[in-house]
Amino acid sequence: MNIINERINQLRKIMKNEGIDMYFIPTSDYHDSEYVNPFFRGRAWLSGFTGSAGVMVVSADKAIVWSDGRYFIQAERQLSNTCIDFYRQGDPEYPTLYEYIIKEMPENGVLAFDGKVVSSIFGENLERGLKNKNISICYEKDLLNEIWKDRPALPLEEIFILNEEYAGESSKSKIARVRQKMVQYKVEKHILTSLDDIAWLLNLRGNDIEDNPVVLSYLLMDANVVNFYVDNAKVNTEVKAYLEANDITLKKYNDVYDDIKTLDKESSILVDKERMNYTLLKSIDESIKVINRSNPTTYMKAIKNEIELENLKEAHIKDGVAVTKFMYWLKNNVGKVAMDEISLDKYLFECRRSQKNFIEESFGAIVAYNANAAMMHYSASEEEKAEVKAEGMLLVDSGGQYLEGTTDITRTFGLGEVPAQWKKDFTLTLKGMIQLSKIKFLEGCTGINLDILARQPLWECNVDYQCGTGHGVGYLLNVHEGPHGIRWRKALNRKEDTELKPGMVVTDEPGVYVEGSHGIRIENMLFVTKDLKNEYGQFLRFETLTFAPIDLDLIDVKYLDDETRNWLNAYHQEVYDKLSYAMNEEEKSWLKQYTRSI
Amino acid sequence: MNIINERINQLRKIMKNEGIDMYFIPTSDYHDSEYVNPFFRGRAWLSGFTGSAGVMVVSADKAIVWSDGRYFIQAERQLSNTCIDFYRQGDPEYPTLYEYIIKEMPENGVLAFDGKVVSSIFGENLERGLKNKNISICYEKDLLNEIWKDRPALPLEEIFILNEEYAGESSKSKIARVRQKMVQYKVEKHILTSLDDIAWLLNLRGNDIEDNPVVLSYLLMDANVVNFYVDNAKVNTEVKAYLEANDITLKKYNDVYDDIKTLDKESSILVDKERMNYTLLKSIDESIKVINRSNPTTYMKAIKNEIELENLKEAHIKDGVAVTKFMYWLKNNVGKVAMDEISLDKYLFECRRSQKNFIEESFGAIVAYNANAAMMHYSASEEEKAEVKAEGMLLVDSGGQYLEGTTDITRTFGLGEVPAQWKKDFTLTLKGMIQLSKIKFLEGCTGINLDILARQPLWECNVDYQCGTGHGVGYLLNVHEGPHGIRWRKALNRKEDTELKPGMVVTDEPGVYVEGSHGIRIENMLFVTKDLKNEYGQFLRFETLTFAPIDLDLIDVKYLDDETRNWLNAYHQEVYDKLSYAMNEEEKSWLKQYTRSI
Repeated sequence: MNIINERINQLRKIMKNEGIDMYFIPTSDYHDSEYVNPFFRGRAWLSGFTGSAGVMVVSADKAIVWSDGRYFIQAERQLSNTCIDFYRQGDPEYPTLYEYIIKEMPENGVLAFDGKVVSSIFGENLERGLKNKNISICYEKDLLNEIWKDRPALPLEEIFILNEEYAGESSKSKIARVRQKMVQYKVEKHILTSLDDIAWLLNLRGNDIEDNPVVLSYLLMDANVVNFYVDNAKVNTEVKAYLEANDITLKKYNDVYDDIKTLDKESSILVDKERMNYTLLKSIDESIKVINRSNPTTYMKAIKNEIELENLKEAHIKDGVAVTKFMYWLKNNVGKVAMDEISLDKYLFECRRSQKNFIEESFGAIVAYNANAAMMHYSASEEEKAEVKAEGMLLVDSGGQYLEGTTDITRTFGLGEVPAQWKKDFTLTLKGMIQLSKIKFLEGCTGINLDILARQPLWECNVDYQCGTGHGVGYLLNVHEGPHGIRWRKALNRKEDTELKPGMVVTDEPGVYVEGSHGIRIENMLFVTKDLKNEYGQFLRFETLTFAPIDLDLIDVKYLDDETRNWLNAYHQEVYDKLSYAMNEEEKSWLKQYTRSI
Repeated sequence: MNIINERINQLRKIMKNEGIDMYFIPTSDYHDSEYVNPFFRGRAWLSGFTGSAGVMVVSADKAIVWSDGRYFIQAERQLSNTCIDFYRQGDPEYPTLYEYIIKEMPENGVLAFDGKVVSSIFGENLERGLKNKNISICYEKDLLNEIWKDRPALPLEEIFILNEEYAGESSKSKIARVRQKMVQYKVEKHILTSLDDIAWLLNLRGNDIEDNPVVLSYLLMDANVVNFYVDNAKVNTEVKAYLEANDITLKKYNDVYDDIKTLDKESSILVDKERMNYTLLKSIDESIKVINRSNPTTYMKAIKNEIELENLKEAHIKDGVAVTKFMYWLKNNVGKVAMDEISLDKYLFECRRSQKNFIEESFGAIVAYNANAAMMHYSASEEEKAEVKAEGMLLVDSGGQYLEGTTDITRTFGLGEVPAQWKKDFTLTLKGMIQLSKIKFLEGCTGINLDILARQPLWECNVDYQCGTGHGVGYLLNVHEGPHGIRWRKALNRKEDTELKPGMVVTDEPGVYVEGSHGIRIENMLFVTKDLKNEYGQFLRFETLTFAPIDLDLIDVKYLDDETRNWLNAYHQEVYDKLSYAMNEEEKSWLKQYTRSI
């Protein structure tokens, strides 16, 4: 019997014994993280679907995984020989997880999950939605623990301090700004559970999630005290001294669950229910006034300060050097040297690793050849990888974590012969990418206003990419960071209706994905900066952070107009000017050619 | 003493006698109409500001008028010699009407207004906002009646039936569709108070508001009965028979206020609080469940049926002929014959009036010369009008009501010498107008997604027009008709986040307005139609309804790109093909020239 079906049967046995009708497993940790430590990868272990996003529901006669457009193809493939159905998120043909639970839970039934890996907002929605069915919600059941024998342990990586020369603002100053917001919101306490918020606030980084330099921790503060809950084994002497110097009290990781129960009665607390786990919310005494708002840190950290922006520019030049050296090697060796998606991934990693202050990748690189690139977040493995030959296209979406910030770049490279249609798709994608890059807009605009600039050339040809156009990026933090983004439809729990403000960083990454054929994505990182202010308001524009050649071999110039073509030529001139310092003579003359005016 | 200040003093005397601290007067009628019968033009009478939109507040020591961007210049001019301050709507420097009332009402004070001219939603917001100040709200005070001695009487115009060959659907069928919605919403009764909804539902038209062929009326319906409340003097024998044949009961206009008080206790009623007056809402018994939703008719009438669309195309050709003949006359006579804004308005009216099935204008035409055109909704008068000479530009925004539907078109004409900057502004405006016209988009898009296409060329040059880009249009009904529209920021009480659906009609009218210098607007009407449907979804596009030359004398072709230029040339070819049938030989050869390829 298939190992996946066997695991689900084991789970069903426990469910039956405990009288549970439905059990659900999101892909999250105790901190609503997008990417999680292996300790939390229960959904992947149980279902065999290894995508980074997805939720799973198991009942006596049904098992279902949901995931989004990035993973439709991969999920359907990985789940094909199991008892698990796949439901496409965002496709109106399928109910959402929420709709499914509300509809399928039997009257008087028992719904169970581990409330520590479920957001408060979702837990409360379930309470409301199930009110009329007399459902028991058991939120303290981590059933996986009982069947997942070789479950990894929680990490114990050391914490390090991000100095002000990189962070641009002291932790003291950030804490003071948060306290100002608490006064404004008329609230006494504030709990932070999201790891990027805590890392940003304390100017601390760690290594508890691969490619996300965060620390598994909680933070509880008021006007006088900041309690930092973390496994003390991660805190070395230097960090301990730093915490003391900043009046931050060190506490044990799990003590937050006790401390929150003993807050002063009748006091008030600021929580972000979208980012705090449900178990923690349920631990707050009923007499306490819960003010539910976005964490003030979320918006604060989205607006990069001057020093962060200067550092980011530097990080992107180093990152551009790495990507350009990779491109040079690829273009010159494809068809001559044996290479595959995994070996290229390694080569690119080495290019990045030789850059100063490089820490790790900002996410597992996507190196996808031809049809594999149609899977938006394809991940090659030693077992399943494509040999890369001198024909077609290679999509490489990758990024690095540097002390100077986080990068995220996608380039699609032409290798030998490429069909005319693929070049057309590439050029239309590029046109969209450029149209968004060069827009000038009035303050007050959101990503919802701007998205169509990237999509218009593709929509004109009856093509769409079924995902957002861009996302915020952290500073030596998560590669996906809100609240803002660029997307035409506001997605549930996303805040793409956040106004774009000077200092915000965002990606610009339209694409074309043709199942079974090819995939294209071109991605630059941009930041918002001020343009002219006049009687009509404050005009804003984007400045590009990413510098690396956009493959001229793939451009069919008849699909560009003068304005996008001029933009491209100016961009390539800048690429050459910024990157050539790090190239040897051969690379330099090659780069000259690949950044020529067209 | 200034007559306006005198009127306000009279009002203040009454307020003092009745113990009223603040009195406010919106520009509305009992039906939340945008344009109103002269009976309801109290704010204009009291303040001297004659714009079509605005609200006024009077207290013992302050009098304020608010109006929107269309009227900033006009209002400041008209109010300049009075005791009245002007507050710019949408300008963050000024409080909104609501903010002002909430802040300035004294504790334990008395706020008064005529609740029949205030929407339920606004009345309820005031209740909530003033809760903590112990304010008495007197909503049955029409104080104007006491001082407005020569107030016009309510109109008594005859009602006429819009036959199915024009309406495309019988009233019976429409009523059945509304009843289906009532079943879906689980509601027993439904009250309609908005005049365009009632006219559309009953396929009746009238003449109670200038240029808006509606009938002052209310409608109260359930699963069996439709009560139509209207001054019976307006109902001739034919209409009486039509009502009977359609099972519609004729009632007296004001009886609705009694009937609503006697609805079955514990029943339920569907109301649209944004469109129903506050007095009427307060008349509903507290035991009745009030379901507050958009009137189903609002969305239904926004989606024109096939017959309406075919008729609209015909109406626009006739309207295009009228505008083109006007343009021919203007271009050939300016500088030779004496003309001014008023005489040109009359000439244009005559061009329209000679078209078959023309009923009236769809709004008072804006004929504005040079700097006057910077006032978005300028209205010339015999006292204040500009002579039009062979230099500069003339903006003409006008429309007609035909049995085949409602038109709304703006053209800006060059007259003799025009500065290069004005031509640049004109061409950028045109580029934006075309970019929006030619966009293909996925179903699900709203006007908020598309607005930037019209604005981009202007924003690129640090220019903005401080109003929406487009609005829905009724069918032989109001020239402004929701719920959809094209605007980058969702405005209060507007529903520009309504998805654009096939059959929706919308204007596309970017512009440039430079105070004291010149104004440009180019406006076509479009309708949404289906394009290809594929794995990405249903693509939609716009089809243009309006056909009339766009003045080639004002185009500086270097500001167009190939795509917009090609669009313009194809459009002008179509203009010639569609309109030349109605032109004499001289007009025809002139039209050939003014629709040439550039």
